[in-house]
Amino acid sequence: MPISANNTNRKSWIEVPADSDFPIQNIPFGVFITKDDVITIGTRIGDCAIDMGALQQLNYFEGIELTDDMFMQDTLNDFISDGKKTWRLVRNRLAELFDETNPKLRDNKEHREIVIFDVKDIEMQLPVLIGDYTDFYTSKEHAINIGKIINNPEKALPLNWFHMPVGYHGRSSSIIPSGIPVHRPMVQSLPNGETTPVFGPSRMVDFELETAFITTDANIMGENIPINEAEDYIFGMVLMNDWSARDIQKWESLSFGPFLAKNFATSISAWIVTMDALEPFRIKGPNQDPAPFPYLLLKGKHNFDINLEVSIQTEKAINTIVSKTNFKYIYWSMIQQLTHHTSNGCRVNSGDLMGSGTISGPTPDSFGSMLELTWGGKTPILLNDGTERKFISDGDTVIIKGFCKNNGARIGFGEVSTKLLPPFLRK
Amino acid sequence: MPISANNTNRKSWIEVPADSDFPIQNIPFGVFITKDDVITIGTRIGDCAIDMGALQQLNYFEGIELTDDMFMQDTLNDFISDGKKTWRLVRNRLAELFDETNPKLRDNKEHREIVIFDVKDIEMQLPVLIGDYTDFYTSKEHAINIGKIINNPEKALPLNWFHMPVGYHGRSSSIIPSGIPVHRPMVQSLPNGETTPVFGPSRMVDFELETAFITTDANIMGENIPINEAEDYIFGMVLMNDWSARDIQKWESLSFGPFLAKNFATSISAWIVTMDALEPFRIKGPNQDPAPFPYLLLKGKHNFDINLEVSIQTEKAINTIVSKTNFKYIYWSMIQQLTHHTSNGCRVNSGDLMGSGTISGPTPDSFGSMLELTWGGKTPILLNDGTERKFISDGDTVIIKGFCKNNGARIGFGEVSTKLLPPFLRK
Repeated sequence: MPISANNTNRKSWIEVPADSDFPIQNIPFGVFITKDDVITIGTRIGDCAIDMGALQQLNYFEGIELTDDMFMQDTLNDFISDGKKTWRLVRNRLAELFDETNPKLRDNKEHREIVIFDVKDIEMQLPVLIGDYTDFYTSKEHAINIGKIINNPEKALPLNWFHMPVGYHGRSSSIIPSGIPVHRPMVQSLPNGETTPVFGPSRMVDFELETAFITTDANIMGENIPINEAEDYIFGMVLMNDWSARDIQKWESLSFGPFLAKNFATSISAWIVTMDALEPFRIKGPNQDPAPFPYLLLKGKHNFDINLEVSIQTEKAINTIVSKTNFKYIYWSMIQQLTHHTSNGCRVNSGDLMGSGTISGPTPDSFGSMLELTWGGKTPILLNDGTERKFISDGDTVIIKGFCKNNGARIGFGEVSTKLLPPFLRK
Repeated sequence: MPISANNTNRKSWIEVPADSDFPIQNIPFGVFITKDDVITIGTRIGDCAIDMGALQQLNYFEGIELTDDMFMQDTLNDFISDGKKTWRLVRNRLAELFDETNPKLRDNKEHREIVIFDVKDIEMQLPVLIGDYTDFYTSKEHAINIGKIINNPEKALPLNWFHMPVGYHGRSSSIIPSGIPVHRPMVQSLPNGETTPVFGPSRMVDFELETAFITTDANIMGENIPINEAEDYIFGMVLMNDWSARDIQKWESLSFGPFLAKNFATSISAWIVTMDALEPFRIKGPNQDPAPFPYLLLKGKHNFDINLEVSIQTEKAINTIVSKTNFKYIYWSMIQQLTHHTSNGCRVNSGDLMGSGTISGPTPDSFGSMLELTWGGKTPILLNDGTERKFISDGDTVIIKGFCKNNGARIGFGEVSTKLLPPFLRK
């Protein structure tokens, strides 16, 4: 089925600001609460949020096989379960409906007022009920940096790293949408040179610049997904800030991987950009040497050229871009991640979230965490308001943005923006 | 509120076999499908499963504030969300209803036929929708054994182990009820002495003898649970077999903790035994030295005297008990586990599952995994059918049982029984 929604010549009758992340070629999916306090599934064009529940009630999806309340739900899980064919039909229909040449909704003022909201008047929610959340560790540059900063520089990458996309389970309950503030966590840690740990507010709260993909129902327990089918099970992508407390992370690394170091919060951008929308931005991934096992062997273009950027906004409302990097640097593609994840028969469901791990580029201004940017806190960053940062301070807002651009076309993710608050005080 | 359901003098008009795990003093909660293909919440007395959805429709919970469809659901999450007071009211009511002196249901043949099923005629389901699953590592004997077998014997326990209940996130989608078979996973591993990994069926599939507790909604994100309140958020316990593939577990331990080594399957017993029912079996835990941080400091009896036993049944249907141990050996109590888990503000919801980690006792016949029982595969176990095992073979069924007993009273969990099948073959 052609992805007619990707037609770059199409314009919408909704005005789209120059350099918007959300031209009519994007058509991402999300969940929001309208100003009338109704929760609905929707999409976005320019600065307009579009109520797809209302569109469905007004029969604008006629001819597409959908359950009656498909878009009048508070998560996208059921829609995602319906599979790629349905995603494409719905996205194509939305593109046609908002095409500047289509009068159907454009010229129906009554319907427009029911369906279209200013994004300033809605409140974005988590787009999916996340059954399970996995975080991978797929950026070679990041893994090498961490190895050098934390461990023995000569053993920067563990022996298994080049043979499989290394990952670990995260906590679904920790995932929040952009805009929800996060409290500095109370943590155990072992001060340098000491043998007795301390307990108190983390002194090393950090962001991690990541992307994540959202899956559909992929398999039954016991069954693996072959690499040539894995792509069909990936619905779309979001930006992610995997908040990390580096002091307890080091302390926890003495036994298993990150636990309380990560599960106090992970923030994601609220609009899921579909893989269909990202199709024009495919790019070849890094050369994989040694060659992966046959079950992970992949040819062709399976990375994506997505510009990523992190800024810190202080309480003085002054913004500083601290990192610019690109998703294309990840060593293990999303397809390889998903294939490996199910290679042992692990069950993957609609709405599961899989993070890339911190994405760092090759140069020091492209590192994806404060830990790397300040090289373990040794070289603070100077912000535009004249203050310095080794890690994130109370009151700082960390903003991650991401967008693709080529031949004048731009598809973006919006942002994931999260303010760090002081430790929670129990009443 | 008194726990009248625990009255040891009470007898039921339902016949209870001698040494049953389910006398009228137990009243566990579960979810099952009846022979009429109806899914319901229920309880069990002796060998009878009791349909609580039907009981509610027939008004037997009159006077207890419950939503209309509380027990006509396919998970216990909403009931658990209602909190300890409701759990206790419902359990007390069930005890009264099935008391041999109460004629109300006993003498109503029509109602009895609607409400009571032979356990052979029902199919147990997962009792809760598990939002998040955490596995702790709380048995000192187990941790020391693993340290000796896997790592440097001189560093058997990581430095952080005595300061906090070490844990890691598991995968909710991997959790299945007793009775569902498990396929031997395909895994990467690094053969001893080699530098290049191989991929194929795991050669070291193992069980882990564990218990797990199920929580209710405990906090909002950012908020911690003080140790003196944590007990209120624990609904009950199940037995758990945390299936493990030791070859990939070793390979994965070079980076983060267990991932594919564990997420192919974790089996739990289907009836949740409430903390109220376990109340008479409280016992003091091991002495904690060094003293825990104040936020984890606990006085009184917070462990439980629960006998645990693992047997392997081969395809010849011959059974061999391979381990007998006790829950009382865990070093960090469930209360300390939950308190630590939320100490950084991590959100805990109704239906979350938290495992104890493998429970090993002090003697070699009380170890909770084949890895320990055969000391890394060095000393195979002789089974009663004359065959030997280093790990679990295809066709073996691993059965974990657990029960409490004192002063003639017995409260049990039933069992978690899981057959290991050969690797899944894709059609």
